[in-house]
Amino acid sequence: MLVARDGADLLLADLDRVAAACAALADKHRSTVMAGRTLLQQALPTTFGLKAAGWLLATLEGHRLLLELRKSRLSVQFGGATGTLAALGDRGLEVARNLATELGLAKQVLPWHTNRTRVTELGLLLGLVAGTMGKIALDVVLLSQSEVAEVAEPAMAGRGGSSTLPHKRNPVGSALARACVQGVNGQVGVLLAAAAQEQERAAGAWQAEAPAVSEALRLTSGAVALVAEVLEGLTVDAARMRANLDAGGGLVMSESVMMALASKIGRLAAHDLVEQAVRSAAAAKIPFREILLADPAVSEQLSAAELDAALDPGAYLGSALALVDEALSRYESERRQGE
Amino acid sequence: MLVARDGADLLLADLDRVAAACAALADKHRSTVMAGRTLLQQALPTTFGLKAAGWLLATLEGHRLLLELRKSRLSVQFGGATGTLAALGDRGLEVARNLATELGLAKQVLPWHTNRTRVTELGLLLGLVAGTMGKIALDVVLLSQSEVAEVAEPAMAGRGGSSTLPHKRNPVGSALARACVQGVNGQVGVLLAAAAQEQERAAGAWQAEAPAVSEALRLTSGAVALVAEVLEGLTVDAARMRANLDAGGGLVMSESVMMALASKIGRLAAHDLVEQAVRSAAAAKIPFREILLADPAVSEQLSAAELDAALDPGAYLGSALALVDEALSRYESERRQGE
Amino acid sequence: MLVARDGADLLLADLDRVAAACAALADKHRSTVMAGRTLLQQALPTTFGLKAAGWLLATLEGHRLLLELRKSRLSVQFGGATGTLAALGDRGLEVARNLATELGLAKQVLPWHTNRTRVTELGLLLGLVAGTMGKIALDVVLLSQSEVAEVAEPAMAGRGGSSTLPHKRNPVGSALARACVQGVNGQVGVLLAAAAQEQERAAGAWQAEAPAVSEALRLTSGAVALVAEVLEGLTVDAARMRANLDAGGGLVMSESVMMALASKIGRLAAHDLVEQAVRSAAAAKIPFREILLADPAVSEQLSAAELDAALDPGAYLGSALALVDEALSRYESERRQGE
Amino acid sequence: MLVARDGADLLLADLDRVAAACAALADKHRSTVMAGRTLLQQALPTTFGLKAAGWLLATLEGHRLLLELRKSRLSVQFGGATGTLAALGDRGLEVARNLATELGLAKQVLPWHTNRTRVTELGLLLGLVAGTMGKIALDVVLLSQSEVAEVAEPAMAGRGGSSTLPHKRNPVGSALARACVQGVNGQVGVLLAAAAQEQERAAGAWQAEAPAVSEALRLTSGAVALVAEVLEGLTVDAARMRANLDAGGGLVMSESVMMALASKIGRLAAHDLVEQAVRSAAAAKIPFREILLADPAVSEQLSAAELDAALDPGAYLGSALALVDEALSRYESERRQGE
Repeated sequence: MLVARDGADLLLADLDRVAAACAALADKHRSTVMAGRTLLQQALPTTFGLKAAGWLLATLEGHRLLLELRKSRLSVQFGGATGTLAALGDRGLEVARNLATELGLAKQVLPWHTNRTRVTELGLLLGLVAGTMGKIALDVVLLSQSEVAEVAEPAMAGRGGSSTLPHKRNPVGSALARACVQGVNGQVGVLLAAAAQEQERAAGAWQAEAPAVSEALRLTSGAVALVAEVLEGLTVDAARMRANLDAGGGLVMSESVMMALASKIGRLAAHDLVEQAVRSAAAAKIPFREILLADPAVSEQLSAAELDAALDPGAYLGSALALVDEALSRYESERRQGE
Repeated sequence: MLVARDGADLLLADLDRVAAACAALADKHRSTVMAGRTLLQQALPTTFGLKAAGWLLATLEGHRLLLELRKSRLSVQFGGATGTLAALGDRGLEVARNLATELGLAKQVLPWHTNRTRVTELGLLLGLVAGTMGKIALDVVLLSQSEVAEVAEPAMAGRGGSSTLPHKRNPVGSALARACVQGVNGQVGVLLAAAAQEQERAAGAWQAEAPAVSEALRLTSGAVALVAEVLEGLTVDAARMRANLDAGGGLVMSESVMMALASKIGRLAAHDLVEQAVRSAAAAKIPFREILLADPAVSEQLSAAELDAALDPGAYLGSALALVDEALSRYESERRQGE
Repeated sequence: MLVARDGADLLLADLDRVAAACAALADKHRSTVMAGRTLLQQALPTTFGLKAAGWLLATLEGHRLLLELRKSRLSVQFGGATGTLAALGDRGLEVARNLATELGLAKQVLPWHTNRTRVTELGLLLGLVAGTMGKIALDVVLLSQSEVAEVAEPAMAGRGGSSTLPHKRNPVGSALARACVQGVNGQVGVLLAAAAQEQERAAGAWQAEAPAVSEALRLTSGAVALVAEVLEGLTVDAARMRANLDAGGGLVMSESVMMALASKIGRLAAHDLVEQAVRSAAAAKIPFREILLADPAVSEQLSAAELDAALDPGAYLGSALALVDEALSRYESERRQGE
Repeated sequence: MLVARDGADLLLADLDRVAAACAALADKHRSTVMAGRTLLQQALPTTFGLKAAGWLLATLEGHRLLLELRKSRLSVQFGGATGTLAALGDRGLEVARNLATELGLAKQVLPWHTNRTRVTELGLLLGLVAGTMGKIALDVVLLSQSEVAEVAEPAMAGRGGSSTLPHKRNPVGSALARACVQGVNGQVGVLLAAAAQEQERAAGAWQAEAPAVSEALRLTSGAVALVAEVLEGLTVDAARMRANLDAGGGLVMSESVMMALASKIGRLAAHDLVEQAVRSAAAAKIPFREILLADPAVSEQLSAAELDAALDPGAYLGSALALVDEALSRYESERRQGE
């Protein structure tokens, strides 16, 4: 548990860095419009700030859970061979309490030789934090793709390049973070399988725990540190974000156009009209706007100006900006509490 | 999350049953002496009450964590296709808040399409609760062995018997509970692997989650209900516990004898004396007490009465009874809070 | 094992479909040039045929392993309560052999109550086949991205569309296949954890096996069938493949230019020259070809025609086409053997 | 793959040791009667030789599969950045073939950058071998329990003892082997999750593989070496095996008595008679034999001598000895092939 305590302290410090970097990105790109993607298809406009706010919130949740565990769950474990403290006569409870104080760990209610709840919790929480790092790293890898190119990892001497392919700028920090995360998941599996321990001391499961815990700590720390580095130096290309959104010829605004029409002719009719226009645009490879303008059923309802408003991604962001503000204010309040 | 809420309610109710059964066993068998076993070897005496208190505490921890998750982490998820709530114009946040109230779920800070922290937490917590059930079931299976026979699962019509082996009274409840636990661990692995979800909606990981969550809920519930049934009707054979302890000819009391000698001749000398006696007893298959009595180096220090006192398992329980009381008082206070 | 046998037969049939679809794609697109991507960055040109050939080979390997297991490893299990066949007197071995013949299963050497090698093998092999399906599905999802758009899943009535986002053509078959694969991995974990079974019949691990095996079969079959469907109807956009390759302004040909220069000025000097040109192209956002043409150190060595040859992706495919042929001939020979 | 080759060679050598030790135990204890246990309840007599034969067969299966993989599946991987071997012009296939010969690895059909079938196979096979070691170690731990005491691990200087509990002889080799096995399972999970790799080179999954493979090799080797050591020096207490069997007062022979009665009065009537006798014996704690002798419905059918024959464990072993012979002859034939 001393190892876990020190490991948790390191993790908390690096999670602070990740949270700060997410908050800075969320703030700076609060209204930087980009494509929101579902199943990796452009779906609706969103902002890069909202994406970063999502990373931020997940990071804060992991941070809070880890802090709670750090404070209340890392307890002393002291019980003699079978948990009766027999060798200490009737002074066992007192010695156990003093030991906890001495070590700066929480007190135990009972010795927990084979109640592995605390260890399982630690392992599971590392899995959760690693999962969040994996999500961020995955997004960075996807946004860094040659064909997307909306973000790039910081260029670092000796990293991300390729001796035979000098044009490459590989997202190596994110790739390594993802590798760490996969390793953590393996160790969490070990800890889960080790939870059921025989009688007063297990014959195997207990021995499997220590390397799994330290490896899980090591790899989670690695993932968090890598993601911190990636986000702190992330290059964000707002122009490319907008260009990618526009490259679809406006199709990504189909819901917005449907909502605009729906207020005039009802949702069902609007849906059918828009669906038809989408099909024509896709089939004929003609921009969506042209198809809509050419359709009298649309132009009867919406003027060209109204249509352009409905096709403007920046005007169809719903609560995106307000949500960024909510997340940032949550960050500020947790940060103040932590001080 | 509605499924998770109802599933959590069921789990909490059955965990209450497990906790109550553990508490009743801890109370009734507070001072029922039995062998404490490490690596499945008899190590030191303990009480069955302390073993049950250990089960109780782990159950209470799972219960408390599940209750917290039930209250604060099962939140509404509402965000439209990409989390901007665009189709609701500027009323998104308000509608989301009202929806949470309507459904009796916690409010969201942000829509959490691809922030799967909550789902991971739920899965991990189910794994933790299942792990505790697995530990209890494992102990019951081991204590039920033909050669140990200290407990037996409740006999139930049509269960535990064998058509061709009518003498068998199989620990089927515990065996099935263990099978459920293994199944839960598999689903937790799925949820961990599914934590990293692409952009605003995943292409695969999200779709893998729903069956994993419901299967994990189903199997954890199964394990908890089975363990509740097993513990509520558990037969405890105190005489056999004592007989198993005595069958070792007193060797299990070697630490106690060593401590008694140590107060007279120092720990190191005492250790060497006792180790020698243990070896002689094991080699010659002579009871430990006889070997000790025949050794002048021992009898010079300890009278026969003092030796018998040191060989009495019931007199070398350390803080076992006090620990049972601590656990029961923790149970009472958590139970009162829960009402 | 009867379930496994029938499940294996179904899987083999659907794997045949996947292999046939891969072979057809490899054949048709043998020389369809596209970007080869490492860490999701364009690295070097390859052909879509070679990518499909890679899928094909992995599919054939899984098919072959499954076929072997189907033939020789799915054996009868028959041993009475503890594997002695005692109730059959001295006719146990004979009855076991006849039973195997009757059921069309392989013979056992010993009853295998708690030798779970066969079951583990089956589970692991399902994991392997599922892993290959996961690889194919992942590639299809990535190639289907709005910004890549090199392939598209077959449009099917009622699938892949979105009620509120009519422009979307989601890669739902691949997404579901990936979800199935994650589920299979969970069940393989269950089977691995269940491999260590107590004495002559396990108390939990054995009971965990049957649902895990049938779920793993179900989900692997699902993944294979989905991938078969996806590949059989896959739309391939060769023009877009070429356009994506060209969009990088020739940077993806840097290795090719370096090799051309290396034959004149040595590899080290060539590397430095090309690296410098790549940096200038990226920094100034000028096409690579122009930078190279403007650099006297390059133009002294390579004429414009030579440079254009070095910049032609179709001329820098190495053994890609020969490798496709190797894979197809392997497919043909395995197919003939299977008949 | 070079690492895998050398690792496989080490494993094969230690698996040979395990197989040899199992075969020696099977041979020596071919007819050493002991309790067969299902769900950890005494079920029917078996022999320790048959148990060891079961371990042997599982070990041989793992050995054979590993040998096959060693020979045919560990192939060279050579393809340049994206698998086209472009930098080698048209000599790629030839160089790849020569490289395989040079390194003593199997030839590749295609470069397999992101066809991870081979790596998955290796990982899965390590999981399978580890599972068998886990089964053996689990049996040894269970048979070593204080209350069972049928086997004991070899006493080794500095191992298995306990400084404060000098009477203990812990099954530390088996416990550590079990810990290794749990670690292997974690790494197999990592390899399965890493099977789906993006396009021509993965961004994370590939990087996760190398440590997982080497850790899985290291831990599997550890488990195999530990089990070899344990079995080579295993103490077997045949008298205690028989005593444990007899301690149940003959109840474990209920099927045998039922079969003897069935030949006279039919199976159904025999079952009811025996079930009744079992219940009376268990309720009144009177030996089964006495209950049976006192029951006229039994004594009308079976003389005391016939009853004693039916109650003799050594006479109700079915095909146990023949099965040991089958396993040993399989071992001999595989050993001869391997030479």
